[in-house]
Amino acid sequence: MDSLVHAGERVDDLQRNHLRIIQDPKRFCFGMDAVLLSGFAAAREGDHVLDLGTGTGIIPILMSAKTDAEHFTGLEIQPESADMAARSVALNGLQKRIDIVTGDIREADAFFPAASFDVITSNPPYMISSHGLRGPADARAIARHEVLCTFPELAAVTEKLLRPGGHFYLVHRPFRMAEIMCTLKAHHLEPKRLRLVYPYIDREPNMMLLDCVRGARERLTVEKPLIVYKAPGEYTEEITSIYGY
Amino acid sequence: MDSLVHAGERVDDLQRNHLRIIQDPKRFCFGMDAVLLSGFAAAREGDHVLDLGTGTGIIPILMSAKTDAEHFTGLEIQPESADMAARSVALNGLQKRIDIVTGDIREADAFFPAASFDVITSNPPYMISSHGLRGPADARAIARHEVLCTFPELAAVTEKLLRPGGHFYLVHRPFRMAEIMCTLKAHHLEPKRLRLVYPYIDREPNMMLLDCVRGARERLTVEKPLIVYKAPGEYTEEITSIYGY
Repeated sequence: MDSLVHAGERVDDLQRNHLRIIQDPKRFCFGMDAVLLSGFAAAREGDHVLDLGTGTGIIPILMSAKTDAEHFTGLEIQPESADMAARSVALNGLQKRIDIVTGDIREADAFFPAASFDVITSNPPYMISSHGLRGPADARAIARHEVLCTFPELAAVTEKLLRPGGHFYLVHRPFRMAEIMCTLKAHHLEPKRLRLVYPYIDREPNMMLLDCVRGARERLTVEKPLIVYKAPGEYTEEITSIYGY
Repeated sequence: MDSLVHAGERVDDLQRNHLRIIQDPKRFCFGMDAVLLSGFAAAREGDHVLDLGTGTGIIPILMSAKTDAEHFTGLEIQPESADMAARSVALNGLQKRIDIVTGDIREADAFFPAASFDVITSNPPYMISSHGLRGPADARAIARHEVLCTFPELAAVTEKLLRPGGHFYLVHRPFRMAEIMCTLKAHHLEPKRLRLVYPYIDREPNMMLLDCVRGARERLTVEKPLIVYKAPGEYTEEITSIYGY
């Protein structure tokens, strides 16, 4: 089993179903956003789920424990990240339920059939890139800035690959909410459910969780606030339960 | 003074600067939404402010106490409401600062010059009308349903009458957030600040306050939650302070 882990990498226990994940602290480690998205997203028995820009594979790995979905595909453009995600899948013995595919989101409609997924998830880069890629192997920049895929490109591919009535779950930053909602609507991915994540009850939200349905009618439910901390370093009960489902 | 008040009407003390307002309980009385919008909106010394669909005149009357704006215009399509609002203005001796104009929002660009307002406010009807006007004098239906003016019509007129860089403040329901943000953006009224109003901290929000700037660049600040009650019947400190500014 240990041969799956390379030098410089570490193995973290996900505190759930004995799941573990391989991460490289020099590259990009998953954050609370991915965990909250996995808790927010739903999938039903028999569903085929696609995670666009899967990074470490954290979202399909967590969702495999939480849902009865039949199959997950994690698409990742960076070969080193895709390789590490595939090793995490193997480490957990999940090879039958999760495939990691190396490829570009912008070309995903070339290697997956149209409307072939019931659920699509994504924790995309949040920042608009104004400087381009800084270095050829800058994994952090690719994960955080839209250097390889813009939000409109992500929405366009999602519209093609999601079946009508299927759900697109994403996490993003509230400062881009207006633009993101318009882009989603332009691609017939109707925002149906929004949850804002507030670090404390008296602070501005720093994340938004969105549930969109392809081709649905207009009507958004904004849910009660998701509050992370009740005191510095002390999670609220809801966050504890999301981390421990 | 009492001749300003007609049979069946009542005079309410606004608990602020000795302001009073005339209302007819058989028609439509202002709600917390109008008070919160008056608290959320800002206007600077010398500003000319337009309130679209002013109803009782509550928003310009409250904002006259809160701001140093030079002049307010309240536009109201229903002659009985406009007459009552004008009498409230007179009751408060505010005739020099507030004009009430009877007219149709959809034709407002015919009687006000283009880009002539620094600030526009609106507490529009929230519900999409699927049934049309029920009765010729159904003031409640007109205030609550888009029978006389749809949101895209409101946004189109606002774009024409607001100066570039001017602010459009509105209150609406969260269930229409995605559609409203797209309509605003299509009319170059960029959402810059959003505040969600939650009845209790663990409930869904039932109002949204939006501050849009004509021609601004994209970037939205979602503010901390505005929570109305800390216990049944007991307002939070922030609501008490908005009601008492």
